[in-house]
Amino acid sequence: MRTNRLEAFSDGVFAIAITLLVLEIRVPEGAGDRLAHELAQQWPSYLAYLVSFLVIAIIWMNHHAVVDHLREADRPLLALNLFLLLWTSLIPWPTRLVAEYMREGGDPERVAALIYAGTMTMMGVAFGLLWRYASRHRDLLSVELSEAEIARRTRRFTIGSPIYGLSIVVALFSAPASLAIIAALAVYYALPQGGMMPGPAR
Amino acid sequence: MRTNRLEAFSDGVFAIAITLLVLEIRVPEGAGDRLAHELAQQWPSYLAYLVSFLVIAIIWMNHHAVVDHLREADRPLLALNLFLLLWTSLIPWPTRLVAEYMREGGDPERVAALIYAGTMTMMGVAFGLLWRYASRHRDLLSVELSEAEIARRTRRFTIGSPIYGLSIVVALFSAPASLAIIAALAVYYALPQGGMMPGPAR
Amino acid sequence: MRTNRLEAFSDGVFAIAITLLVLEIRVPEGAGDRLAHELAQQWPSYLAYLVSFLVIAIIWMNHHAVVDHLREADRPLLALNLFLLLWTSLIPWPTRLVAEYMREGGDPERVAALIYAGTMTMMGVAFGLLWRYASRHRDLLSVELSEAEIARRTRRFTIGSPIYGLSIVVALFSAPASLAIIAALAVYYALPQGGMMPGPAR
Amino acid sequence: MRTNRLEAFSDGVFAIAITLLVLEIRVPEGAGDRLAHELAQQWPSYLAYLVSFLVIAIIWMNHHAVVDHLREADRPLLALNLFLLLWTSLIPWPTRLVAEYMREGGDPERVAALIYAGTMTMMGVAFGLLWRYASRHRDLLSVELSEAEIARRTRRFTIGSPIYGLSIVVALFSAPASLAIIAALAVYYALPQGGMMPGPAR
Repeated sequence: MRTNRLEAFSDGVFAIAITLLVLEIRVPEGAGDRLAHELAQQWPSYLAYLVSFLVIAIIWMNHHAVVDHLREADRPLLALNLFLLLWTSLIPWPTRLVAEYMREGGDPERVAALIYAGTMTMMGVAFGLLWRYASRHRDLLSVELSEAEIARRTRRFTIGSPIYGLSIVVALFSAPASLAIIAALAVYYALPQGGMMPGPAR
Repeated sequence: MRTNRLEAFSDGVFAIAITLLVLEIRVPEGAGDRLAHELAQQWPSYLAYLVSFLVIAIIWMNHHAVVDHLREADRPLLALNLFLLLWTSLIPWPTRLVAEYMREGGDPERVAALIYAGTMTMMGVAFGLLWRYASRHRDLLSVELSEAEIARRTRRFTIGSPIYGLSIVVALFSAPASLAIIAALAVYYALPQGGMMPGPAR
Repeated sequence: MRTNRLEAFSDGVFAIAITLLVLEIRVPEGAGDRLAHELAQQWPSYLAYLVSFLVIAIIWMNHHAVVDHLREADRPLLALNLFLLLWTSLIPWPTRLVAEYMREGGDPERVAALIYAGTMTMMGVAFGLLWRYASRHRDLLSVELSEAEIARRTRRFTIGSPIYGLSIVVALFSAPASLAIIAALAVYYALPQGGMMPGPAR
Repeated sequence: MRTNRLEAFSDGVFAIAITLLVLEIRVPEGAGDRLAHELAQQWPSYLAYLVSFLVIAIIWMNHHAVVDHLREADRPLLALNLFLLLWTSLIPWPTRLVAEYMREGGDPERVAALIYAGTMTMMGVAFGLLWRYASRHRDLLSVELSEAEIARRTRRFTIGSPIYGLSIVVALFSAPASLAIIAALAVYYALPQGGMMPGPAR
């Protein structure tokens, strides 16, 4: 399959998933004069929107850093890409979960954070697998990419999974800390050394 | 009509339908300490999300295997394509229905599975008609496709409808078995011999 | 503005609006053994889904029949296109309204049908204005289109508005008849003489 | 990153956000003979739909006026673009908020208008930053754009932020007046002198 198809479909899913996040933010009903107060109370909604937006935006950018160097897509790569999309398009659900239960403290908050971190971890694992498959099948890659460049990307794209995994462990103790780790990873990938568009070799 | 238009619009509908599936997965309200339990209870939601995701992903891939070989689209082909999209974009609804009623057992569960299997069958029939029309109007096809290749695709693309039909019959007795058949068909289409991208002839 | 931009954005709105229609079809809650009965009772939902799907599909096809012949888009044309999209992206709302109130009979049913027909009329008027503007500014059109062809399209594209207008009047007396007129118009446009892709001149 | 990627993803988000607006318009439940009355009562929904539709349409058009002149996108520009999308994809939420609380008068109405105007202001600021960054890094711009043209666009694209800011102040006193300012700004940008497609220099 030509990679432009793969790309257009994946971009569509990323764009829709990122835009559906807003449906998670509630409009309090019949709040009357307590509206400002109730809106302030639902701060986890805004936080969850922001973190999930960042995560999906980074997936989109990193996905391009992979697909741009593909000459074509074979069947296992298509399957791995769908595995990535399966978890990415799920993200609005744990986002709603965190938005709903993050203020509660105790067990419900940790359950929500655990599922959030777990979804992100599966998404990170899927992305790592996608890159590893592509980088080990050099016939799929276009020639422009040097060995050193491939090794550098491998380091960067595989650092995500263990850190997402860490966010699962942390979620058992503190939901906000778990989200902070996920947000920090997104910021790392957005920075120049984050592997997306490594200046000279681009 | 140029086929790239047909393709872009169809891909848009596939990408949106697949991403809307997540809206079906509920966030329990006010579950408190029973959150983990309630989330576990709604396992049919996760199963329905997974199966519908697979089915739409496979439609997308098989759709490309057809459209990639079209030189142009005439009016009946456009109409058949819209008939396919009509059923595909409906999929989130039977998915919600199965997610809601699959735990209940008895009649409601079977009604939900019946409608789910029925929607998939109509989608499979529409896809079969689309391929049959295209393959019988050789002027619409690009020359690259050999007779043997067309015959092979016809076998593969028409196997879907009777198997989806079987899932309707099975739904009368067992909802999980009906979903299992639909999932197995999706996995079959994802395998190399499943007709999507038959190695040498691609 | 290059017309491919206009087209991609418009197609995106058409694809999303057509796929959002499914959110209108309800899943009865806690219906138990009455599930089949309750699903049968909400037949106006299925009818409204079908008619709105047809209408948006036809707008998409006719829109291409216009934009394909444009060389470029100036500001008034962009504004008219946005006016068309404003009414098209509204369609899921009157669709939900009809689905909810069509069984009720009496005033509520007629109010719902009136708003449905009114939205379609405004959409038809917007489409007519778009075509008229394009056809009167020949510098926007590519040369391939003959005078006779333009006249033929003008007849076809302007027949929609009065018929949609008729569906408003009919809605005052019978909601089903009003929907039937709208559906019949969509079927007319789908037929070969419906103006979308007039064989020889394509 | 090639700008066509940036453009396709951004256009996707714009198209989805503008089409999701319709989900905000309610269908009254069980209104019976009071349906027409209840539909009339929810006029702020229609107003909010219209204004938000206009605003997103204008962002889309102005975004193209920027991206069309970009040769490539570097990392800060990508980040600024995501900052713009973050606020744009949020717009359906304040739109629902205004639709829900605008009739109430008093504090809730002003809170809703304040958040609406605040979201638009952040969006306007993000757009201004995007243009300023692009215009100050001439290596990102294609050569066709003259100094005078750049200065003209800078004036036009930076006029948005202070006017959106004004709509925040006005929201403290009158919600309708605040929305009117936002709508007027959208109309200004839609007019020929609004900077989007300045005839001769294009």
